[in-house]
Amino acid sequence: MSQGGPSAGGEFELIRRYFQQAALTAAAPESLPLLGIGDDAALLETAPGQYLVISTDSQVPGVHFPHSYQPADAAYRGLAAAVSDLAAMGAGPLGFTIALTLPDTAADWLADFARGLAQGAQDHQINLIGGDTTRGPLNLGFTVFGQIPAGQTLLRSGAQPGDLLCVGGSLGDGGAGLQLALEKRLPEELSSHQRDYLHQRFWRPRAQLSLGIALRGRATATLDISDGLLADAAHLAAASGVAVHIEQSSLPASEALQAWPASIRNEWMLRAGDDYRLLFSLPAAMLQAVHAEQPDVRVIGKVQAGQGVWLDSGQGPQAVSGASGYQHFYPSSAGAADD
Amino acid sequence: MSQGGPSAGGEFELIRRYFQQAALTAAAPESLPLLGIGDDAALLETAPGQYLVISTDSQVPGVHFPHSYQPADAAYRGLAAAVSDLAAMGAGPLGFTIALTLPDTAADWLADFARGLAQGAQDHQINLIGGDTTRGPLNLGFTVFGQIPAGQTLLRSGAQPGDLLCVGGSLGDGGAGLQLALEKRLPEELSSHQRDYLHQRFWRPRAQLSLGIALRGRATATLDISDGLLADAAHLAAASGVAVHIEQSSLPASEALQAWPASIRNEWMLRAGDDYRLLFSLPAAMLQAVHAEQPDVRVIGKVQAGQGVWLDSGQGPQAVSGASGYQHFYPSSAGAADD
Repeated sequence: MSQGGPSAGGEFELIRRYFQQAALTAAAPESLPLLGIGDDAALLETAPGQYLVISTDSQVPGVHFPHSYQPADAAYRGLAAAVSDLAAMGAGPLGFTIALTLPDTAADWLADFARGLAQGAQDHQINLIGGDTTRGPLNLGFTVFGQIPAGQTLLRSGAQPGDLLCVGGSLGDGGAGLQLALEKRLPEELSSHQRDYLHQRFWRPRAQLSLGIALRGRATATLDISDGLLADAAHLAAASGVAVHIEQSSLPASEALQAWPASIRNEWMLRAGDDYRLLFSLPAAMLQAVHAEQPDVRVIGKVQAGQGVWLDSGQGPQAVSGASGYQHFYPSSAGAADD
Repeated sequence: MSQGGPSAGGEFELIRRYFQQAALTAAAPESLPLLGIGDDAALLETAPGQYLVISTDSQVPGVHFPHSYQPADAAYRGLAAAVSDLAAMGAGPLGFTIALTLPDTAADWLADFARGLAQGAQDHQINLIGGDTTRGPLNLGFTVFGQIPAGQTLLRSGAQPGDLLCVGGSLGDGGAGLQLALEKRLPEELSSHQRDYLHQRFWRPRAQLSLGIALRGRATATLDISDGLLADAAHLAAASGVAVHIEQSSLPASEALQAWPASIRNEWMLRAGDDYRLLFSLPAAMLQAVHAEQPDVRVIGKVQAGQGVWLDSGQGPQAVSGASGYQHFYPSSAGAADD
């Protein structure tokens, strides 16, 4: 299973266990998957030295995006969220398919959706290569394909004590952007330029594909932040068998985020989902080279021996307890377990 | 788009057009798809001489299978339907992902679903390699992967006048099996063995992977019958720019199907969906070799110059007019456009 989750607090872990059984019962196919279920994406070796990277992702209104959406935005955001899993593996984009289930076929809805999809495809340099349309409750199913040379794949499991913990850019914009998307009351000091920025960050996120490629052979563990920094840091720590220490004061906030009080801002930076920034561990000796190519990268903490996530908010490191999984934005409808 | 459709009478054609625009606007990726949207599956060239075959398919209760279903059956049937597109391309199976959207996580539902999925994976020699779970109205999204040597792909577009028209086995079982699935009244002369056979044919169809592989380099056009013989024959005729003539008396019926009156039987053989048999055109010189490997193959007509589908029910060939697309089994809910 793709593993932004377990957002919904572990109950979907059950599903993963069931599917892992299913994966193991099948007889060996012509080409065995190298990773299968568990990281951001699955890998198939298609030719000696070349891995095909595959990730699949469903988006449902009311769970992954508000019911009040523009079709073009939903298309763009859904594609970007799926492509973000390719970025987290260090893969270059190859193509995607869409399995679109929709209740009717209003021409203006479709035209708008196709526009957003085309824009997302262009911005991420990834081609639509096939799909399927079905009548039913709206469901956007994206399957994305990338490729990576063998041995350069970015997994979640290689973080080493002593590594730096880094992010690919500002955090918390997803949480602030959601306020706009839900048409909540906004701070008066938020400029129209800042509103536009947050709207874009929420509805038109850019998967960090070039950062992922820059991290090949450098980062020791990588994933994309879709469930919130603390939850995703916990995934990295667990997969790597290490402790992750985060320095609250080092978390990068956008200018727009400054319009909110520090307490709200901090909460979003730590726990809001949908930032789609890469979170990675990096040997200190690699930082300069990465910075030269990717100036937005920020060091936010370090990897140490131990386990779990530790947060230093100014009074020394405190253990962050339990799953801090992001419930998306409909607590009443119980969130989702995907990324 | 995958093209079992246009089942719902052409309105989903609109969607395909929109998506084709989206596919063309994106910039060229590292590796261009060779076919993209339009045949049973998409192709990517992953290494010189090797194509990766990809097909994506959504299954929704009330559209693709009745609301009264066993989770294991829905899983098996959904996977087999998706794998059938690989068979129609002549591909060998590599793996599949599932994007599962479900309203809750009842353990017994999941255990049963996983059992059916594992059985389907084993029967089709295809491994589960990844997936995604989301909260929402039930939706089974399968993406299947196969591979085929370059130049051996079975398309829909190569049928030549003079070719024989063939199917991979009995027709109409999908229509009869649906009667069982919907708990309709059945003929009294139907034996329990025949009931079991039809139940299996509906809920546990086997994608004809070995037939597809046997047709490599032999068949001139191939697809799988998911919308009904006449509708899928029309797709083959249109894609190849030929006329297809079908001999009603040559259509192969299972023993179980004989329990129904000829008029109903014929209707199902011609128009019922979900048979998942391969329909293909074959140069006459190839028939003996194919028969030796695949004894269930039957010749049901021929390819001629012209266009459209012609049916000879004993009074000479009659043009079959319009789209005979199968509306699945909920005419009120407007069917679906996928295969």
